[in-house]
Amino acid sequence: MGRQQETSAVYNMTGGDGPDSYYRNSIFQRTVVEDAMKAVKKDIEERLEFPIDNIPKTFRVADFGCCVGPNTFVAMQSIIEAVGLKYDDKSEFEVLFNDHANNDFNTLFRNLPSAFPFSSQETIFCAGVPGDFHGRVLPRASLHLGYSSYALQWLSKNPDQVADPNSPAWNKDSIYCDGHSPQVVKAYSAQFQSDLQNFLNARAQEIVGGGLLIFTIPGVPNGALCSQNYHGLFYGTLGSCLQDMANEGLISQEKVEAFNIPMYYPPIQELEAFLQENADFSLERIYAIPSVTLEDVHSRANMEPTIASVTSIVSAIVRAIMEVVIKQHIGEDSVEPVFERFSVKFSQNYHKLAEMQTPTNISVVLKRKALI
Amino acid sequence: MGRQQETSAVYNMTGGDGPDSYYRNSIFQRTVVEDAMKAVKKDIEERLEFPIDNIPKTFRVADFGCCVGPNTFVAMQSIIEAVGLKYDDKSEFEVLFNDHANNDFNTLFRNLPSAFPFSSQETIFCAGVPGDFHGRVLPRASLHLGYSSYALQWLSKNPDQVADPNSPAWNKDSIYCDGHSPQVVKAYSAQFQSDLQNFLNARAQEIVGGGLLIFTIPGVPNGALCSQNYHGLFYGTLGSCLQDMANEGLISQEKVEAFNIPMYYPPIQELEAFLQENADFSLERIYAIPSVTLEDVHSRANMEPTIASVTSIVSAIVRAIMEVVIKQHIGEDSVEPVFERFSVKFSQNYHKLAEMQTPTNISVVLKRKALI
Repeated sequence: MGRQQETSAVYNMTGGDGPDSYYRNSIFQRTVVEDAMKAVKKDIEERLEFPIDNIPKTFRVADFGCCVGPNTFVAMQSIIEAVGLKYDDKSEFEVLFNDHANNDFNTLFRNLPSAFPFSSQETIFCAGVPGDFHGRVLPRASLHLGYSSYALQWLSKNPDQVADPNSPAWNKDSIYCDGHSPQVVKAYSAQFQSDLQNFLNARAQEIVGGGLLIFTIPGVPNGALCSQNYHGLFYGTLGSCLQDMANEGLISQEKVEAFNIPMYYPPIQELEAFLQENADFSLERIYAIPSVTLEDVHSRANMEPTIASVTSIVSAIVRAIMEVVIKQHIGEDSVEPVFERFSVKFSQNYHKLAEMQTPTNISVVLKRKALI
Repeated sequence: MGRQQETSAVYNMTGGDGPDSYYRNSIFQRTVVEDAMKAVKKDIEERLEFPIDNIPKTFRVADFGCCVGPNTFVAMQSIIEAVGLKYDDKSEFEVLFNDHANNDFNTLFRNLPSAFPFSSQETIFCAGVPGDFHGRVLPRASLHLGYSSYALQWLSKNPDQVADPNSPAWNKDSIYCDGHSPQVVKAYSAQFQSDLQNFLNARAQEIVGGGLLIFTIPGVPNGALCSQNYHGLFYGTLGSCLQDMANEGLISQEKVEAFNIPMYYPPIQELEAFLQENADFSLERIYAIPSVTLEDVHSRANMEPTIASVTSIVSAIVRAIMEVVIKQHIGEDSVEPVFERFSVKFSQNYHKLAEMQTPTNISVVLKRKALI
């Protein structure tokens, strides 16, 4: 239970399923999940292997950092389908939805029945597992497949140096790790590796030998800066709105300078080198896939992109992700004004989108080495 | 998942942990739990048995109908302690909190860390399992000990006859199974047995051979009526408030006549005979214990009972339990007025308490027969 006490900072998405919720504004992440699932199904087919006399009667799969849905449902359904095709259909499944204890599990649970509409079978059982995934959240050797999507870029905290005016890594003029300062990048990279190591140590105890750990995380191509992709433009625009509010005396300059989004987009080569050194998991596969573009999002919805439609989609996405962080660090009163400004400023910056790189998603498959 | 789709009617307690919440108004149920735990610990010591070569490495315990806490925490802690004393302390525990999908799991999860403050050990893992316990909610043979307290008296629905003016079991003048009409009792008893059978069938698939199923349920002594005990006075007073509101034209007479609390307090002999016939579980122990009295509640809180203090406690308890049912069947607007009236009328009825029986709690221990 130690880790379930949430010692880390907690940055959850906006709960519920109302207009501002993550539930309704996770279309980017959803397309990431849908694309990733094609590969995941192949990975399960080719790489998941248990001794023939030790096929689990109950196959347990967990989503670490599941948020409130619906993306976790898409992923879990695909995984169950792939495992079901591979093994005897007499297996039962237990699907474990993990996120911080203050994630909105009520919304997740309310939407479960429509997510798993297998009314004729009683073979899929669902549970919510509250707790910080940087520590243990499940019993020893109880899990057959761990999954995580768009969660591991969130850090347990910002590195101390980036808010320290006396440090060379002081990130004064930016609210995120934009990539311009090597010292800032180094501080974020160290925090990321420490967090990821804790995550892998915990999963190594939970996942049985032969089981898989599959995750997708936004990253950058080697040598590229986070500020050069779509997401960087979003965070940079948000930072500029906060700076405007400080300039107008609405919030304190110190608060804005001290504010940083606890998030790191690793370069793929850095992540690969790090994972290759892990003692508990073998690196089965790692590759970068371009994320969906805003054009893709529109074309899948049969819409023509316009400044208004893109601004509306982007504003809603950024708000669903950032509202809680802004509330905690800048103050509740700032939430409405900053997101009003965001929409205006983003539509003014719209033309910059064309210069931006498509964000990169890094897709990773690890296999738990058999215990000797 | 079929059953997790909540085909039954759903009567959850008031969520959150505010002043009207079940969390803060479950003192009756808490004293029931505390008293029951002494016996439960002995049952675990004497009756739980797994083959010596098959002691579970992860001991899984579930609370069916856990509500939002804190009573479930008291129970789960006691059970873990008793199991820990009996077996090797290298075991890990998984505690599964089950209730309807619209139970307030967010409140439950927020209160977990203070409920399990074992910061030095990482051996107790918690999960929430949403779904109707009249059907399967856990994988096959995955559970070592099932527990339920003050939940099985809630029925999946009212028997159809009790709201049917053409039936001899029409329960026109009462809002619950008060015991006066044999036809009404018969209808409720049949519904209770059908629901309990579904519960036992599901648990028989989930609990491993040698595992225990322990539950406490409010009941009545043989020959007694529910209206003769404290709880009956509470429900009767509530019904009389609704009738007053109908008389004043505030709510419809038809609504009040059709309204019934889907709840049954079985006579202990009836329950014993029913359980003895079960093919999957052996009846290890069944006995009635008097529930706590209002005097007990006060003395444990070092208070002198007064009309005001008893009325305040009872009103809060009845509201936490009944608010959602009233909202669903009478209407949201009626909630405040009916509970205002309840306090007034209950304090007028205060003298009747002395004539009432102490409610009876039936404590049951079943053991899952080994599969052959």
